[in-house]
Amino acid sequence: MRVIVTSGGTSEPIDRVRKITNHSTGNLGKLIAEKLLLEGHEVTMVTTLNAAKPSEHKNLTIFIIDTTAELSACLVQEVPKNQAIIHAMAVSDYTPQVMVSLEDFVEAIHEDIDLATITNHSKKVSSKAKQQVILLNQNPKIIQQIREWQPQILLIGFKLLVDVSEAELIETAQAALIKNQADYILANDLAQISESQHIGFLISEHQIERVETKSQISELIAKKIGEVTYENDCSSNNR
Amino acid sequence: MRVIVTSGGTSEPIDRVRKITNHSTGNLGKLIAEKLLLEGHEVTMVTTLNAAKPSEHKNLTIFIIDTTAELSACLVQEVPKNQAIIHAMAVSDYTPQVMVSLEDFVEAIHEDIDLATITNHSKKVSSKAKQQVILLNQNPKIIQQIREWQPQILLIGFKLLVDVSEAELIETAQAALIKNQADYILANDLAQISESQHIGFLISEHQIERVETKSQISELIAKKIGEVTYENDCSSNNR
Repeated sequence: MRVIVTSGGTSEPIDRVRKITNHSTGNLGKLIAEKLLLEGHEVTMVTTLNAAKPSEHKNLTIFIIDTTAELSACLVQEVPKNQAIIHAMAVSDYTPQVMVSLEDFVEAIHEDIDLATITNHSKKVSSKAKQQVILLNQNPKIIQQIREWQPQILLIGFKLLVDVSEAELIETAQAALIKNQADYILANDLAQISESQHIGFLISEHQIERVETKSQISELIAKKIGEVTYENDCSSNNR
Repeated sequence: MRVIVTSGGTSEPIDRVRKITNHSTGNLGKLIAEKLLLEGHEVTMVTTLNAAKPSEHKNLTIFIIDTTAELSACLVQEVPKNQAIIHAMAVSDYTPQVMVSLEDFVEAIHEDIDLATITNHSKKVSSKAKQQVILLNQNPKIIQQIREWQPQILLIGFKLLVDVSEAELIETAQAALIKNQADYILANDLAQISESQHIGFLISEHQIERVETKSQISELIAKKIGEVTYENDCSSNNR
């Protein structure tokens, strides 16, 4: 089976020297990819420069991206060629439009200037002002486009929250499952992730499965991919 | 001689999952450290997780930092123990105070609320608003504190601009030399840096020396450190 694994965290430039980055070591994506390779799948990793990566393997292709725009351009090409995608990448929700001094920003608001027209004139924003403001615009949600690009794909998304109750985590993930037309959402809480532990809930329409380590997460996800492979094989045999 | 080399780029957290980072590969700092080790100096590198680093060496100590606050805490300890510092790190000028929806920010300005009192209630800022604003406060300039921590230190600072004229670059660096009480400023322009080229101007009170590659920069800086070592040795002999 051909599977995409996304991992790492995207970055969005503020100017030529500064960027906003979503944290992610890429360790979980690496483990998932390794497990899938071990089970004989063909894996395409879409990841970032600093994320952890599996060793070279004949069935592994790696694409390195930086921004959400680059991620989108890569996935629109790759998604139609694959039967499953595990979208573990931490994707930037917002892209900076402009960084200006607080004084200039407040003046623009008082004068009711259309904020969409404010842009940086400089390639490196000056660091003289005591306070600055970065104005950010929401990015299109890439996960919501995946099924448009390949309606039959098995889509496993991720939802990371920070220090919430299990009930809130699961509820948020169940909403994400519907909104993103995903088959599974792996819900996790940063406060429950450490070197030796990674509490996660793999949520589908009718089921919630709890796991406790990165290794268990990768095994459970590989099992779900395996089940689809088996179903596909059976239906082929029955033809 | 005991020399500090700083390299890489600092990061400042926006919330638990997002940060603002200054780009830097750390390649130049690595080359400088290697050259100094080759000439028999004891090198302390203060750098970041993802920056390039020299191989292990008996005269090399490495400290890994992330934020400007951590950089400051490290240097206040290390600067007094050293005779020279090459401060090549890209240091964040600003730290995020809060990320809020544009709507809430505009309302706060119209209601004349003290912006210093706005803080995030959440550990992960919600990504629902179409537009958001990050309010940033200027950081203390660490380079301006180095001479307070060790008045006799040989201080080599860096100034990076983007796509300016040589005249503007040199003028800005000369101003930085005085403002930061530095012995040298290495002025460079991102538009003049590529794989094979790194145009730089090493600026002191009475001299401007032009170099064209990372290797030439590291050699010139090592030469300046060597001259001080020689002067110190001579003055010791004359006592």
